[in-house]
Amino acid sequence: MSDSVLPRLEICLSPALLHLFDTRDTIVVIIDVFRATSTIAAALHNGAKSVIPVASVPECIEIGKRTENSITAGERDGKIAEGLQHGNSPLEYPSTFVEGKTLVLTTTNGTRLLHMVEDAAEIITGSFLNLSAVCDFLIAQKKNVLLGCAAWKDRFNLEDTLFAGAVATKVADHFATNCDSVRAAKYLHESAVAKGNYIDFLRDSSHYKRLSAYGLEHDMEYCTTPDQHPVVPILKGDKLVIHQ
Amino acid sequence: MSDSVLPRLEICLSPALLHLFDTRDTIVVIIDVFRATSTIAAALHNGAKSVIPVASVPECIEIGKRTENSITAGERDGKIAEGLQHGNSPLEYPSTFVEGKTLVLTTTNGTRLLHMVEDAAEIITGSFLNLSAVCDFLIAQKKNVLLGCAAWKDRFNLEDTLFAGAVATKVADHFATNCDSVRAAKYLHESAVAKGNYIDFLRDSSHYKRLSAYGLEHDMEYCTTPDQHPVVPILKGDKLVIHQ
Repeated sequence: MSDSVLPRLEICLSPALLHLFDTRDTIVVIIDVFRATSTIAAALHNGAKSVIPVASVPECIEIGKRTENSITAGERDGKIAEGLQHGNSPLEYPSTFVEGKTLVLTTTNGTRLLHMVEDAAEIITGSFLNLSAVCDFLIAQKKNVLLGCAAWKDRFNLEDTLFAGAVATKVADHFATNCDSVRAAKYLHESAVAKGNYIDFLRDSSHYKRLSAYGLEHDMEYCTTPDQHPVVPILKGDKLVIHQ
Repeated sequence: MSDSVLPRLEICLSPALLHLFDTRDTIVVIIDVFRATSTIAAALHNGAKSVIPVASVPECIEIGKRTENSITAGERDGKIAEGLQHGNSPLEYPSTFVEGKTLVLTTTNGTRLLHMVEDAAEIITGSFLNLSAVCDFLIAQKKNVLLGCAAWKDRFNLEDTLFAGAVATKVADHFATNCDSVRAAKYLHESAVAKGNYIDFLRDSSHYKRLSAYGLEHDMEYCTTPDQHPVVPILKGDKLVIHQ
């Protein structure tokens, strides 16, 4: 196929740049590797009925109360937020615990970006835990794609961009790109591959430093292990469910 | 010196992210490699009295009229803008032409970013043409530094980030950084160095493609040649002059 008939792939490096991109008729992939979109992939793959992403702790409590068989979860500053039951680690949601339940999850960056996207064809979530599943889905859909990095309070971050670079590299033959963010993310991915694995590359990153101060090194190692949870979480109404 | 007493170095990848950074008591380096800040370095090094960066073509004409011995310059879509006398190429300003004159220059991205910064300690401009001079200046000042990429209509671009990465790499021992944009820019710079030279790395970039459609390949090659114009343009009032 010639480039001109291929769908377009772009990367938005921060929610503060989202207005620069046309998301109409586009599949938007929300990326918040540490750790919202990793937790979403794990919970759904382990049998959660759905995940409801919400912006605030009060909203999380409120929706949790009126949702049958639900779990409320979310952290602020590395600790379970007051009034919620669980944290934001993919390892907290084994099937023995989460099966059949609805996870009401509040996170700072990923949720915010997800709610900012208004007119996309579909919104899905991506993380290393479901890297190949996301790539296969994007290739199959043959639509324009925007990889949206949740970043950290609008600041560019390394881990979300690295994941975007991993996706861009894997799906390269199926998309046209003339986007410098894609080029940069692919170079970053190359640098990480040269280091041997993603987590070694990410140890020198601001988010790794912040979360390792809370003792979350093992969590982050898990979050950078590809394809542990091969599902595609897709937004239907206000809920993320597995794309069938 | 321990990291804690070193001044801070950060990179702002787009003017749309500038609000995330504290520019007080900080030296801001405006970066618009293709081609505003390259032209500024060349013109001043070749003897221009000063460069006045202005936002619009009408403003450029107006200031040109009331400034003795001035040249008005600026391009839109790769051509000299209507009503102006000269273009935005560093090669257009040899000393035989520019010596003693005031260059009134309008550019889309670089000028806009320069005018957005309000409370910096100093504003200077950087490009490969004055790479080492900029680095030496930053090391000598011992102040916090923000490398500000002009980008392209707020979109991340490869050439400005690559230059920021070159600076961050060269001055690394003199600054503390916990900024993922700095880490990413340094990796990009490593990738470019591995390619052998900057222009080969930049041939696959959106700006290179845009400007080469106007036949400006030679211009861009010149703009990526380090240290041809070893001066530090610094903003004094509304004028850029050589830092003495």
